[in-house]
Amino acid sequence: MDWLDLLKNSHEMEGPLYLQIMNRLKESIESGKLPDRSKLPTNRELATLLDVDRSTVSRAYTELVQAGLIESHVGRGTFVRAAKPKTHLNLNAKSGQVSWSEKFSRKSNTVSDLLNQQSTYRSQPEGTISFAGGIPTEEFYPHEQFEEIVQQLLKSENAREMFSYSPAEGHPLLLHQVQKVLAAQGVSAADDEILIVSGSQQGIDLVTDILVDADDVVILEEPSYLWAVCNFKSRQANCLTVPVADTGIELGALEQMLSSQRAKLLYLMPNFQNPTGNSMTIENRQKVLALCTRYGVPILEDNFAGDLSYEGASLPPLRSLPGGKELVIYQGTFSKALCPGLRVGWLVAPREIMTRLRLAKRSCDLSTNSMAQVILAKYLEDGLYKNHVEHVKKAYRKRRDTMLGALERHLGALEASNGAKVFWTRPSGGLFLWLTLPVHCSAKDLLLFAEREGVTFSSGELFYCNKPQNNCFRVCFIQQNEETIEEGVKRLSRAISTYFDSIQKRPPQTVNSERLRRPENVLI
Amino acid sequence: MDWLDLLKNSHEMEGPLYLQIMNRLKESIESGKLPDRSKLPTNRELATLLDVDRSTVSRAYTELVQAGLIESHVGRGTFVRAAKPKTHLNLNAKSGQVSWSEKFSRKSNTVSDLLNQQSTYRSQPEGTISFAGGIPTEEFYPHEQFEEIVQQLLKSENAREMFSYSPAEGHPLLLHQVQKVLAAQGVSAADDEILIVSGSQQGIDLVTDILVDADDVVILEEPSYLWAVCNFKSRQANCLTVPVADTGIELGALEQMLSSQRAKLLYLMPNFQNPTGNSMTIENRQKVLALCTRYGVPILEDNFAGDLSYEGASLPPLRSLPGGKELVIYQGTFSKALCPGLRVGWLVAPREIMTRLRLAKRSCDLSTNSMAQVILAKYLEDGLYKNHVEHVKKAYRKRRDTMLGALERHLGALEASNGAKVFWTRPSGGLFLWLTLPVHCSAKDLLLFAEREGVTFSSGELFYCNKPQNNCFRVCFIQQNEETIEEGVKRLSRAISTYFDSIQKRPPQTVNSERLRRPENVLI
Repeated sequence: MDWLDLLKNSHEMEGPLYLQIMNRLKESIESGKLPDRSKLPTNRELATLLDVDRSTVSRAYTELVQAGLIESHVGRGTFVRAAKPKTHLNLNAKSGQVSWSEKFSRKSNTVSDLLNQQSTYRSQPEGTISFAGGIPTEEFYPHEQFEEIVQQLLKSENAREMFSYSPAEGHPLLLHQVQKVLAAQGVSAADDEILIVSGSQQGIDLVTDILVDADDVVILEEPSYLWAVCNFKSRQANCLTVPVADTGIELGALEQMLSSQRAKLLYLMPNFQNPTGNSMTIENRQKVLALCTRYGVPILEDNFAGDLSYEGASLPPLRSLPGGKELVIYQGTFSKALCPGLRVGWLVAPREIMTRLRLAKRSCDLSTNSMAQVILAKYLEDGLYKNHVEHVKKAYRKRRDTMLGALERHLGALEASNGAKVFWTRPSGGLFLWLTLPVHCSAKDLLLFAEREGVTFSSGELFYCNKPQNNCFRVCFIQQNEETIEEGVKRLSRAISTYFDSIQKRPPQTVNSERLRRPENVLI
Repeated sequence: MDWLDLLKNSHEMEGPLYLQIMNRLKESIESGKLPDRSKLPTNRELATLLDVDRSTVSRAYTELVQAGLIESHVGRGTFVRAAKPKTHLNLNAKSGQVSWSEKFSRKSNTVSDLLNQQSTYRSQPEGTISFAGGIPTEEFYPHEQFEEIVQQLLKSENAREMFSYSPAEGHPLLLHQVQKVLAAQGVSAADDEILIVSGSQQGIDLVTDILVDADDVVILEEPSYLWAVCNFKSRQANCLTVPVADTGIELGALEQMLSSQRAKLLYLMPNFQNPTGNSMTIENRQKVLALCTRYGVPILEDNFAGDLSYEGASLPPLRSLPGGKELVIYQGTFSKALCPGLRVGWLVAPREIMTRLRLAKRSCDLSTNSMAQVILAKYLEDGLYKNHVEHVKKAYRKRRDTMLGALERHLGALEASNGAKVFWTRPSGGLFLWLTLPVHCSAKDLLLFAEREGVTFSSGELFYCNKPQNNCFRVCFIQQNEETIEEGVKRLSRAISTYFDSIQKRPPQTVNSERLRRPENVLI
């Protein structure tokens, strides 16, 4: 179909542009020029072809969907409907029924498309060893200490504060304590530079909310955190990616991108990056700051596991380096080093944007739950968090070492038929390490073999924003104890052997879609 | 300025439309045709004039702002900058500094404009009686019961669940208990029709998220809940309003609007509406459902205070009436009948949209805090919520009666110079009643007199989406005890008398802006 030819008169001045495009398509559909079930170009394709804004095409398509002339199929595209209503465009075409699928927002459609493409997690039988999630170990959750604190609090003057609204910026007691946690991370933050959020995910959501419009450029590391990608893409951001090396984001590629694009935001995880486990060197931190300062691009620094450093102190956050205070929005959470169920994290940001972040927080959920805030404040005040972190760091370090040792023992000698080997990262902290199979392999296919052996991981394509690299996968090393890690890696090794054998003999297997879980269960 | 003439060639095909508009404006600014400080048309005006999409104009303006050629002033408009950079449009015009004000999203700018216009709350001296907020009485918060529950839970098998992530849809124990609360409200909801949210505000935010795009029509009652208005407007929705009468939303005006607009959503509070306290009759509930069914328009039914009925049971929710299951998204919260600090509410919605709501919840904050969910589940399971509601209903009913009596005694005889009187609503439940001064009066001005007497309320213009009605205000009758209510109304009466005198003698006073609080403190 020559679309330009079909639509060539759409730029004549006869009403809004989207209406012209819509009418031209409508005519073509009604005249049969565009037959039933024919596929339409994507928004982006048609916008480029006609040299118009994507929102213009999107609006034309939306009107046609609402008129019942075309329909969208998730993951497949937009098509001329086979069963079209006989009526002409009618403001109230539907009667007596809500047609939900035509009512969803662009944002919701994007999230749905993204998650449907990526959700390949399956529920597993009892006994499966999971390296898939990103959740701290439940046995370390602070039950007893919390019990004592809650008892004290409910008898104290602060009791009513656990039940009342907290200010949007956070409960004053917690803000005060978080300032101390931040100081220990090398970050100084004044009272009007902090916001308590309901976990890191909300932090990313709020920052996106106040900065990112449709078509804005957001630069991310590749691979990166799935739900951050989702937040940016759902705002129709133009997500551009720069590869992560052992020493952090690749500086050459980053500079090229910063100099050629007017970016709204750079999203980074300098410490123990999710999913690779890599950390940015101090030199690279300074260079990234210098680059972003030169090009005036703000950084969202996600330090989700900053307190979980297993080899001395973590490197200083970008926010703490010269220039960082002006440029960096810094976020952290208690979800990884302590426990995730409280849903408490923080954002530190330049004063100029804090009012906006607080307003965004207010319109999102008014404030974070007070009970968790007041309990955490007391837990921090009593020095219990510091002790807890010391305790879990020792345990997690041991687990990382066990994982690295087991990988060496059981995977070190494995070879594909062409002699290629499996590689993995050696993180100095955090939760994750990242394995790379020989280039012709598929981690998604390997996962099927692994599941048969009773072990799971997070297949790598989940963490890619643009072009998925299929031969990588993530394992979480903090959730299982040493014995289970050893056994899990043995199973993984057997799975890889069998998989290597299988790709010599037959074409790769495909995923059995009946076993797919619902998309909202994609792991963190 | 003849804008059409100035921009008349913008529709020639020479690159994207926004670029043409931008270049034309740039030329005019640089040539001096558009002098420094001259005012540009609004997005809407220029879009109408040129017959293009508003987003096209908006993008052209954004580029010019980023190029330093024009600037926006909140509440005043867009102007040619007096101090323009000498350079030409440059992708990296700014160096060494982030210019935050140019980076904010359209959404954030809208929220900021809206709240800056509306935030007229001032901090008050000790001893001031506040009828302003919408918060339940702290003395009724369930301290002791929660203490017992937390102790039991932390020793039980469910302890670790308080610290882990809950599923996005909510903790299973709480979902089960909320189904029972819903059943008592007459609403049946299957497992795949409920979502736990972090308070009602998040419920509105998520529904808006999945349904509302820029320029979509959302119909609201007028007056309505400020933060719902904010959620809709921040998505650039076209908010249309229908007045609320004693018997609920005006049906004639609603039908006219439904038949002439393709609305995306109707937002309603049928019970004890915020701010009027009015409730929709059963006949009107049925008629609204019939209308929305005919026109295929979904309803967001916000039953924020549904359990606080002081005259027998609340009327059945729209969701429970024939046709409601297909059309109505129903939301409730524990914030008003129990306490707000837990940040727990729920959404009930047709299956077809629940997957989308859960995905939206997931990308917003992953899940609601588990501790509050598990504690609440136990509190509900033990029958304590039911007892609590019975208890507070008796107390609040008494307070409402005290308030109505005091108003009658102290305000009933008050007259403005023209003999006009003060009127108020007589709510059958909830938190609020709504007072109307004679038409020529300003509640905002009265508030200054009231504050001098030591009493505050919520000035009515806060609750208007389009054309504020200046002579109304809201009082919350559940937060103060009988004695304080009596004294507060006496003070109010003195304030009104003095105000009535003053408007005979001199022009109305204006608000002293130095005493304005930060916008995020606007009350609920």
